[in-house]
Amino acid sequence: MVARLIADKPRLLLPSGETTKTVGSYAKVLDFLAANHVDRRGVLWVIGGGVTGDTGGFAAATYLRGIAYVQVPTTLLAMVDSSVGGKTGINLTAGKNLAGAIYHPRAVLVCGDFLRTLPPREFAAGLAEVIKYGLLGDLALFQQLEAVTLTAAHAELFNVIRRCCEIKAAVVAADENETAVEGGRALLNLGHTFGHAIENVAGYGAYLHGEAVAVGLAGAARLSHKLGQLSAADVERVERVLTRHALPVKLHTALPMGALMQAMQHDKKNRDGRLRFVLLQRLGEAATRSGIEAAMVQEVWRELGAGG
Amino acid sequence: MVARLIADKPRLLLPSGETTKTVGSYAKVLDFLAANHVDRRGVLWVIGGGVTGDTGGFAAATYLRGIAYVQVPTTLLAMVDSSVGGKTGINLTAGKNLAGAIYHPRAVLVCGDFLRTLPPREFAAGLAEVIKYGLLGDLALFQQLEAVTLTAAHAELFNVIRRCCEIKAAVVAADENETAVEGGRALLNLGHTFGHAIENVAGYGAYLHGEAVAVGLAGAARLSHKLGQLSAADVERVERVLTRHALPVKLHTALPMGALMQAMQHDKKNRDGRLRFVLLQRLGEAATRSGIEAAMVQEVWRELGAGG
Repeated sequence: MVARLIADKPRLLLPSGETTKTVGSYAKVLDFLAANHVDRRGVLWVIGGGVTGDTGGFAAATYLRGIAYVQVPTTLLAMVDSSVGGKTGINLTAGKNLAGAIYHPRAVLVCGDFLRTLPPREFAAGLAEVIKYGLLGDLALFQQLEAVTLTAAHAELFNVIRRCCEIKAAVVAADENETAVEGGRALLNLGHTFGHAIENVAGYGAYLHGEAVAVGLAGAARLSHKLGQLSAADVERVERVLTRHALPVKLHTALPMGALMQAMQHDKKNRDGRLRFVLLQRLGEAATRSGIEAAMVQEVWRELGAGG
Repeated sequence: MVARLIADKPRLLLPSGETTKTVGSYAKVLDFLAANHVDRRGVLWVIGGGVTGDTGGFAAATYLRGIAYVQVPTTLLAMVDSSVGGKTGINLTAGKNLAGAIYHPRAVLVCGDFLRTLPPREFAAGLAEVIKYGLLGDLALFQQLEAVTLTAAHAELFNVIRRCCEIKAAVVAADENETAVEGGRALLNLGHTFGHAIENVAGYGAYLHGEAVAVGLAGAARLSHKLGQLSAADVERVERVLTRHALPVKLHTALPMGALMQAMQHDKKNRDGRLRFVLLQRLGEAATRSGIEAAMVQEVWRELGAGG
């Protein structure tokens, strides 16, 4: 259907992967729109994974100060996560998603056919966000993921995607501009403070976003345990679910501790320079917590395989 | 006062002039903010003319998806025009202001001292927008400008600046997102359809923005006359006021007709590819008008000194 809709339209191809999510690619999309004389009534169809969606969505948000766009996510990650909620943006050298806009697409079209062509590693990376939704807000979903291994062909997959979108939409609707002091939209970043640091230090592309988030979820579970909020057995359950779905729970190779800690300090979720995390209260419930001691975070990094 | 407020703060200097208003400068400001670990509670002080204000304001609008900023306009043009209304943005190769955001500053500080250091040519360029406000919405202001030559030292200057800001604020408040089908915020573009085309074809920097707008105001008056809305005597009054304030009413050198017409087609104020102009109903009152014949516009361009 999508193919028919766009058949005769001018198109711009962006290379896949996080290294595309730059101010340079953003400028390319803007120039593409201008070169095709798109006016304020134009509609940009953004077909691709999260990188394409974020970059294209940001271009739509700012071209002529905002034109309509439609998200057609082609990866599991984009279907359950980045296409819903209106966050668009690009990375800067200093960190991920440091520039962008909150700008909702006119529609999000989820078409399962795309998942059949998705490489297994990409599919698994998407499942990291699915597991995240179970952990932060739906114990039943988490238990479902403990019981079955989701694949692109699994009969339950579409329902799981829908459930993830529902959870995200509910969280976003309650706190669209991320102004809640506690909880709110920040909860969606469970595992992401660790994850962003990993991506930043390892260099974009060394880990898929979902893989970094998977290690980050293990890190968040471990940190929650150290703070007395989660049992050791529950940390193991988190790691087992991740492993079951072909996701890493430790760093592939040791990354330097100093750089990881510094990357966390730069993370935009921090307020006034203090470390702030989304942690598990229990399986199926997350909460933000500030003022975490650096020494405890370093312990977690060491357990995850950081060196130095 | 401004100097004291920013004395110990990190700062980034951008070269002056329209050629700075690029995606590259925008990226520089973003990188500057990130390098200084500015978090969501940070405030960007944007001190400079319209180019700095638009570029800096767009960076503030999108860094961490929006931080607070303060406009300190240092040119007459920025004081009466670009600092009020929340339009921020950058130019693309294909045209001016093609990317940006509507994002209001926390405050606009107008400090007359800056005008004493402003080169006369820049001051005159600012007066083009002042004359525009008189033409589009305040006959008394226009008549005042016919009676006196405004200078940086003139006792009435501050009141004139305030009056221009009031007119702009009223127009913007009634149509913030430029969604009005007729009139509304588009009225502020009186003279700008011609002006943008001149800047685009002559190359940014050949004309100051205000100089291009001055020629554009003469063009809009001539087009209004051709459509029977304005007398030949009134066209002369418009040109006399511009000339009195050291502003051009014709092109310095002939620019190619084809390129000027094409640049107009790309102007984002057009809908569905038809030519749309802001024209004078009479001195002191403007209105939008669509479906203008290309031949008539070409006649005006010829009178303004276009060749080819």
